[in-house]
Amino acid sequence: VKICLIGFEERARLMQKWASPGVEVQAKPRHKGPSSIESLYDEYRITPEVFELVTHAEREGFDAVIASCFADPGVDAARELVSIPVIGQGESAMLVAASLGYGFSIVTSGHAIAGPMRHQARRVGVEGKLCSVRAIGVPVKEIRLGKKETLQKVVAISRQVLADDGADTIVLGCVSLSMLAERLQSELDVPVVNCLRASLKMAELLVGCGLCHSKRAYPTPPNL
Amino acid sequence: VKICLIGFEERARLMQKWASPGVEVQAKPRHKGPSSIESLYDEYRITPEVFELVTHAEREGFDAVIASCFADPGVDAARELVSIPVIGQGESAMLVAASLGYGFSIVTSGHAIAGPMRHQARRVGVEGKLCSVRAIGVPVKEIRLGKKETLQKVVAISRQVLADDGADTIVLGCVSLSMLAERLQSELDVPVVNCLRASLKMAELLVGCGLCHSKRAYPTPPNL
Amino acid sequence: VKICLIGFEERARLMQKWASPGVEVQAKPRHKGPSSIESLYDEYRITPEVFELVTHAEREGFDAVIASCFADPGVDAARELVSIPVIGQGESAMLVAASLGYGFSIVTSGHAIAGPMRHQARRVGVEGKLCSVRAIGVPVKEIRLGKKETLQKVVAISRQVLADDGADTIVLGCVSLSMLAERLQSELDVPVVNCLRASLKMAELLVGCGLCHSKRAYPTPPNL
Amino acid sequence: VKICLIGFEERARLMQKWASPGVEVQAKPRHKGPSSIESLYDEYRITPEVFELVTHAEREGFDAVIASCFADPGVDAARELVSIPVIGQGESAMLVAASLGYGFSIVTSGHAIAGPMRHQARRVGVEGKLCSVRAIGVPVKEIRLGKKETLQKVVAISRQVLADDGADTIVLGCVSLSMLAERLQSELDVPVVNCLRASLKMAELLVGCGLCHSKRAYPTPPNL
Amino acid sequence: VKICLIGFEERARLMQKWASPGVEVQAKPRHKGPSSIESLYDEYRITPEVFELVTHAEREGFDAVIASCFADPGVDAARELVSIPVIGQGESAMLVAASLGYGFSIVTSGHAIAGPMRHQARRVGVEGKLCSVRAIGVPVKEIRLGKKETLQKVVAISRQVLADDGADTIVLGCVSLSMLAERLQSELDVPVVNCLRASLKMAELLVGCGLCHSKRAYPTPPNL
Amino acid sequence: VKICLIGFEERARLMQKWASPGVEVQAKPRHKGPSSIESLYDEYRITPEVFELVTHAEREGFDAVIASCFADPGVDAARELVSIPVIGQGESAMLVAASLGYGFSIVTSGHAIAGPMRHQARRVGVEGKLCSVRAIGVPVKEIRLGKKETLQKVVAISRQVLADDGADTIVLGCVSLSMLAERLQSELDVPVVNCLRASLKMAELLVGCGLCHSKRAYPTPPNL
Repeated sequence: VKICLIGFEERARLMQKWASPGVEVQAKPRHKGPSSIESLYDEYRITPEVFELVTHAEREGFDAVIASCFADPGVDAARELVSIPVIGQGESAMLVAASLGYGFSIVTSGHAIAGPMRHQARRVGVEGKLCSVRAIGVPVKEIRLGKKETLQKVVAISRQVLADDGADTIVLGCVSLSMLAERLQSELDVPVVNCLRASLKMAELLVGCGLCHSKRAYPTPPNL
Repeated sequence: VKICLIGFEERARLMQKWASPGVEVQAKPRHKGPSSIESLYDEYRITPEVFELVTHAEREGFDAVIASCFADPGVDAARELVSIPVIGQGESAMLVAASLGYGFSIVTSGHAIAGPMRHQARRVGVEGKLCSVRAIGVPVKEIRLGKKETLQKVVAISRQVLADDGADTIVLGCVSLSMLAERLQSELDVPVVNCLRASLKMAELLVGCGLCHSKRAYPTPPNL
Repeated sequence: VKICLIGFEERARLMQKWASPGVEVQAKPRHKGPSSIESLYDEYRITPEVFELVTHAEREGFDAVIASCFADPGVDAARELVSIPVIGQGESAMLVAASLGYGFSIVTSGHAIAGPMRHQARRVGVEGKLCSVRAIGVPVKEIRLGKKETLQKVVAISRQVLADDGADTIVLGCVSLSMLAERLQSELDVPVVNCLRASLKMAELLVGCGLCHSKRAYPTPPNL
Repeated sequence: VKICLIGFEERARLMQKWASPGVEVQAKPRHKGPSSIESLYDEYRITPEVFELVTHAEREGFDAVIASCFADPGVDAARELVSIPVIGQGESAMLVAASLGYGFSIVTSGHAIAGPMRHQARRVGVEGKLCSVRAIGVPVKEIRLGKKETLQKVVAISRQVLADDGADTIVLGCVSLSMLAERLQSELDVPVVNCLRASLKMAELLVGCGLCHSKRAYPTPPNL
Repeated sequence: VKICLIGFEERARLMQKWASPGVEVQAKPRHKGPSSIESLYDEYRITPEVFELVTHAEREGFDAVIASCFADPGVDAARELVSIPVIGQGESAMLVAASLGYGFSIVTSGHAIAGPMRHQARRVGVEGKLCSVRAIGVPVKEIRLGKKETLQKVVAISRQVLADDGADTIVLGCVSLSMLAERLQSELDVPVVNCLRASLKMAELLVGCGLCHSKRAYPTPPNL
Repeated sequence: VKICLIGFEERARLMQKWASPGVEVQAKPRHKGPSSIESLYDEYRITPEVFELVTHAEREGFDAVIASCFADPGVDAARELVSIPVIGQGESAMLVAASLGYGFSIVTSGHAIAGPMRHQARRVGVEGKLCSVRAIGVPVKEIRLGKKETLQKVVAISRQVLADDGADTIVLGCVSLSMLAERLQSELDVPVVNCLRASLKMAELLVGCGLCHSKRAYPTPPNL
């Protein structure tokens, strides 16, 4: 089983460690557009290259593709272009979180993303389990520096959503933040979902179930 | 008041006829991407040029921009880029329809669009008033030929949604279809919302109210 | 275009300033019932005169009527009585607010109105965009005195709903409060919807679109 | 325990037969407004007298009042005026129906009422259990003639909602129709809720529980 | 009318005091399983005996059965086994509370029950009226000791849900807590629903309406 | 990785074929209670043994348990008893289906299960993606005979939900029916989810993500 990650090489290497035996993960990094995605505008800007890379991945024989960015930009359209599963990272994380308790909260980077993420939960179909979206107020580029303060902020906000918003499960709503999932889970006594890991396992799940996204939902574009 | 339509010249001329005194409508036609939009992939493909044209429109002193396509592709991101209202055609039509009765149905071109349109109604926030989305099964390019059969199909499907789905108001869910709104309204005894006309009037409304989309919802991208 | 406001002369004069060229606004003030509306009971009490005034307005050739009071009492029944648009002020404000961001909050006069207003948002069909209803705890009659403290209270509560309730847009939920909309908007950096102005523009929009409320939703009463 | 019905004498006599030992039912018939209620306009028109009669009932020592009409016009405002329970007939029927299965449908008189009844279910708070509202297309005055065809139509429509709409319980959505409840229930094998009987028992329930509507929801009007 | 309570003798004696004339309440106490129910596991553990006792009650000629525990464990399945009404205590309390205002909150014993109770409100069908579920953090066994501190905690939490969660009505979400309903109601100025009393009155209501749960919803098990 | 199936040996053997390399599936068959589950009563009856088997599985070192029956009886309580993932088959199938398109329908055995399954979808949190539940009207025991007519009925009903209910994905809502998933998927052109296979892969997913159900949602029972 060959799975393609649209994203950084080092993330694919990390995923390889989590992969089931017989599963190979390869990166197809983006080269155009913004290096970090911090607005809706950024999300759209990366989609032309995402479409290209997803199409190449199918031609090269990959069994599934994992798209980049928690917000899943272009994932719906990419599913129209190919006949292999195209996995969204945010979607995977939310579906896994929905299975773990009565309600989950998303802890993310910037405040501006909270509104769109509530819409994303509706698109995924699990808004009934979403307790809240809260931001730590740190830009993605700074999160990547791996400062100690970032973890502290994530811990503090996570304690808040557990105490005040009724959540019993945490989703880290940003690929860069998800590197903190293990440490956060050992700090709190609740499950913390890492979208990178959840999306790999969701890709394995769909391939292992012999399932692909419905062509009735995502038909091949007539203009293609 | 100067309003810019991202779209065909002849549509801007049509809108000019509907415009309030003192309102001038100018077209900025797209030149790249597919001529008709028949898939999610097509929707994403036109957004780079939409962003460019919206930005130009603000620089040239327009008071509001009306984006192209009922599905409102890129409208959310375009609002991040400027400080004038960016109006979606589908959004405008749905909000107007929501005010006219207990429930509306959307009659659109192809079956593949029904699923995404239900999501669009949720994004707009009026899903509680959406009775159904039904398609006539005719591609946009054929609709533009203005055949008699197309109107007949629209009438037939509209009668169905009134009889079976609980709708009391019709929205024509495709800019090309909306040319039939007047004839359809005189045929049936219910209001029929034309998205082109509704979006012009919504643009006039926001400008006339001194309102613009919230920068808290659509902040200027930090990567810009 | 002639638009009738069921309400005070001075409010019609204010609306005239906001009106598009060629639009004339005339008041038909109520003479019976309470001068300010502070309960559900008050809302019902004004409806007999509202029905009369709406019917007169149609006979006198008005193109649309704007009913009095944010709560839209009797607006649904008034639509049964005539064949011109009958515009609700609360409904208009909520629909406009729904178009401006991911979620709006209503800041209103008294606490007792919060429950009914949540129901009103459901009736309008935009409950998915309503973040909260909060009251400043000042009766309508006192608001009309235009004291400085009232504005201060509105600013304070508005800051709360932006910070705590996820709102990106404010609706002033009381006609008397809406006089503060402009000052509030320049104080905060978010759109503030004035229901008086929004309802005028919604009336212009419907007339300009050639639309009226669906007779399938609001049929002529058989007992008339 | 003394319970007042705003409505016809013969209906109070019928309710007396269903009353628990020690419960006395007395009618306060309306004398103004339409004799049958067939529009929203009719609903508003009866409210001034309803408010008067409810206030008298409290002064005369009644323990609870049952308001007239399935649509519950003015019930919310009447609760502001007194400190005894004011029971709605539609509300009672829907709450009882919600307890009997997974979903109920309302079979009512005219098509025009379907839209408002869906809103009523939302106001009552049980829209999650409402499967559908269907009308037999017979005006209230004709229903009162007790023709055989009316029962046949009710049976036919009821079979439809059971087969097609997922309902397991029927509510007769009109006081005059509810006279057919027993016969309908013996015809079909599902519970059929009679709003007249349900509202009597709901009045007994609230009095027997020592409960009254919340004054926080329905405070005494300051203008009274 | 003979009503059977699955529960303690002294609770049946209490209910007898509240019963309408001609209604007799008898207890069938459980003898197996945990004495207090403090987990989902406990809820399942009592169901085999509940099914037995409900079946016996029908054979002995009871007109209705009230099941034990606010969480209504096994009530749905018990309805399959008999042809008399099987009343849930939590369900009854929530339906009654839904009729009293715009929204109710549940004040219960332990934090672990909050999540399941929100689901219970959805099952009952009144989630649209549920403002919040809050726990006092005291185990059922300790509540039964009738300490003064328990009432104080209930009062404090109740004031919170009234002030912060938008509730106008309180439900005590635990049979043992419901003994405090009267004192709490006289302390606060809002209705407080006692699930024991509400369930007795709901049993009387259904018997008095000639209604039983729908066999279409709860058919006799084919494996019986 | 060792995964325990509460169910028939031959089903565990089937799952072993689908298992990822290094994953071992073992059955723990039930010996008490009904052999097929055709009512809510049956669901409760099997839970005591399910709790026992789940507890044993954890003690014997299994990494995850898959509970029996699409309806997931007792799965919530079983999660309280252990610290390994307890996977529901219906829950897994619905979450996977939610990821594949805009909406799924469940095709199940008997009509009586449709109501409870809609509630199950709410509990799982994906009701926003559930288009319909339809039954073929064949008891589980007969489905197990593997008659040709059963497949024909499933195909016919599936075509209906695709054409009329807006579904783009099918879930087979019964473990015995799910044996037909592959044949059905090749017959129709949409994904068909097999709950047995989906639950195995969901177990692998959770173990592979290092996640377990939240103890905040399912705390260890104090009475244990």
